[in-house]
Amino acid sequence: MTLAERVLDGDIRAAARLMRDIDDRFKSATDELKTLYPHTGNAYILGITGPPGAGKSTLVDQIIAAYRKKDLLVGVVAIDPTSPFSGGAILGDRIRMNRHADDAGVFIRSLATRGCLGGLSRSTMDVVNVMDAMGMDVIVVETVGVGQDEVDIVSTAHTTVVVMVPGMGDDIQAIKAGILEIGDVFVVNKADRDGADRTARELTAMLEMKHPEPEAWQPHVLKTEGCRGVGIDELIEEFTAHHTWLKESGALQRLIEERNAKIFTDTLRQELFDTVFGAISDSGMYRQILNGMRDRSLDPYTAVEEVLAGSAFS
Amino acid sequence: MTLAERVLDGDIRAAARLMRDIDDRFKSATDELKTLYPHTGNAYILGITGPPGAGKSTLVDQIIAAYRKKDLLVGVVAIDPTSPFSGGAILGDRIRMNRHADDAGVFIRSLATRGCLGGLSRSTMDVVNVMDAMGMDVIVVETVGVGQDEVDIVSTAHTTVVVMVPGMGDDIQAIKAGILEIGDVFVVNKADRDGADRTARELTAMLEMKHPEPEAWQPHVLKTEGCRGVGIDELIEEFTAHHTWLKESGALQRLIEERNAKIFTDTLRQELFDTVFGAISDSGMYRQILNGMRDRSLDPYTAVEEVLAGSAFS
Repeated sequence: MTLAERVLDGDIRAAARLMRDIDDRFKSATDELKTLYPHTGNAYILGITGPPGAGKSTLVDQIIAAYRKKDLLVGVVAIDPTSPFSGGAILGDRIRMNRHADDAGVFIRSLATRGCLGGLSRSTMDVVNVMDAMGMDVIVVETVGVGQDEVDIVSTAHTTVVVMVPGMGDDIQAIKAGILEIGDVFVVNKADRDGADRTARELTAMLEMKHPEPEAWQPHVLKTEGCRGVGIDELIEEFTAHHTWLKESGALQRLIEERNAKIFTDTLRQELFDTVFGAISDSGMYRQILNGMRDRSLDPYTAVEEVLAGSAFS
Repeated sequence: MTLAERVLDGDIRAAARLMRDIDDRFKSATDELKTLYPHTGNAYILGITGPPGAGKSTLVDQIIAAYRKKDLLVGVVAIDPTSPFSGGAILGDRIRMNRHADDAGVFIRSLATRGCLGGLSRSTMDVVNVMDAMGMDVIVVETVGVGQDEVDIVSTAHTTVVVMVPGMGDDIQAIKAGILEIGDVFVVNKADRDGADRTARELTAMLEMKHPEPEAWQPHVLKTEGCRGVGIDELIEEFTAHHTWLKESGALQRLIEERNAKIFTDTLRQELFDTVFGAISDSGMYRQILNGMRDRSLDPYTAVEEVLAGSAFS
C-alpha cells in the first residue's frame, strides 16, 4: 500500500510520515498528495491567530476538548515562531497541548516558520489536505498573527479567530489595524484580568465601524478564560453560527475558490523557482551571475531576463 | 535625460518618481535600475527592527540628525505595517520624522507591507539601490521586526540594530529568540523607564551565551532615550565600530555576496511567477485549472506539473 492509501485507511503513522516527507520536500510526497486530493474538502478549517502571550495554545487546547466531547476528530497545525537562524523551536506551547497526546482522535503537527518565502503557506495547506483526507472533522491552524505570511495563512480558513488580551494598549494598534479585517470571531482571552470589558467594548466599536453592511457577517467579540475553560461553549456555538452563515449565504463557495487559487499559485511559485534555480545552479550560470554582480559588470535585472529568455514563457 | 540619469545627477524628484514606478512595477523601472546598478555599492546600510512601540521611529529621527551633523546624506526606507486588506497606512511614524522634510540631505520613503510574497523584500532592495546610486552615504531600513519577511530584509543590512524597551517580559520571548541571532547592535530604548538596567543585563547575558567565538563580532547592548537624544552619539560610534570590523575581518565581502544572491533570487522568483501566471491567465488555462479543482477532477500538484511542462526548464 502507498502512504496515501494508508492515510485514507486512517493510519496515523503513515500520515505523520507523509507530513515529514512534505517538510523535506520529497518528490514522492507530491504523488501521495495527488492521490489524497479527491478525498479532501470535508473538514471545517478554523484559523486562530493573535500576538504572542494571548494564550492561543491554551484556548486551542480547550477547543480540542470541546470538539472531542462532540465525538469529532480534530487536527491541529501549529506554526512555531522558530528562530530563522538556529532553527530552535519554542517547545512550551507544544508541551501544554500534550494532554491530548494519548487521544487517537487528535492529531497535532508543528510547522517551523524558517521556510523560504511562500514555503510556509504551501506546507500548511499541504498538511491541512492530509488531515482533511484522513477524515479530521475540524482542523485548527494556529499562528502568531504578526507577519504577512501568517495573516495569509489564517485568512484562508473557513472561520478566522483573532485572540486578544485585556489592555494591549496603543502599542499594538498597528497589529490591530491589520487584524480587524481578517477576523470572523474575536476573542478577549484572560477575561478575568482588569480591562477585559473595556478591550471588548473598544473592539466591538471598531468592528461596527468596519462592517456596516447588514447582509454581511457581523463579527462578535467573545470573552474567554482559556485556563479555566470559561466561555468555550459560547465560542464553539459562534463557530457553528459562522459556518452555517457561510453555507447559507454562498460565501463558502467563494472562500473555497480563493483557497484553491492560493494553493495553486503558492505551489506554482515555489516549483517554478525551485526548477529554474536548480537548473541554473547545476549549469554554473548562477555562479557566473554572482561573479558578474560582484564586479558590477552584470546587474540582477539583466541576469533575470537572461534566465527567463531560456524559458518557453519569455 | 532618462530618470536614471537624472537620479545620478542628484535630482530628488526623479528619484521619487522612479520609486513610485518601482512600486507600480512599471517595466520601464527595470531599465532605469539597470542603468543605476553600476553606481551602487557605496552606501552604508543600517537595518533597524524591533516590536511596535519600541520607539524605532524616534530613534531613527535621532540617527538621521546625528549623521546630518557629520554632513552625511541619509536615506530612509520605512516599512509600514499596513493593513493587508484596506491598504490604510499608519501615518504617525511618518509625521514624526517630518522635521527633516525641508532638509535636502535626507530622503525618506515608505513602503507598504501589502505586497505579495517576496515582493516587499525585492521592492526594498530596489529602493535601497536607487538611494545608493543617488549618493546617499547612509541608508536606514526600518521595519517592525515580527514577520519572516521583515527579518529577511533587515538581516541583509550591513549593520542590523534590534530595538527593545524595558520590561517586555516573557510575552515576547518568542520574538526575542528569533531576533537574538540577527542583531549586530542591541538597543534598550526608553532607558529612563523602570527595568532598563535589568533588560540590558538579561540581553547581555543571552548574547554572551549565543556568541562564544572570540574572533567573531560581539554584539553589545546600548541604552538610549530616543525622545531626549540620550545615548545617540555612543550608538553612532558603535555603528562605526561594526562597519570597521566588517571591512577589516573580511565579513563585509561575504555580506555583499549574500545580499547579491538575495536580490537576484527575489527578482527571479517574482519575474518567473509573474511571467508564467500572466501567460496561463491570458490563455484561459488558469480558469480551467480552477474549474478542475472546484469539482476535484484536477489536483493542484498535477496542474502545476502541466504548467511546468510548457516550460523549457521541465
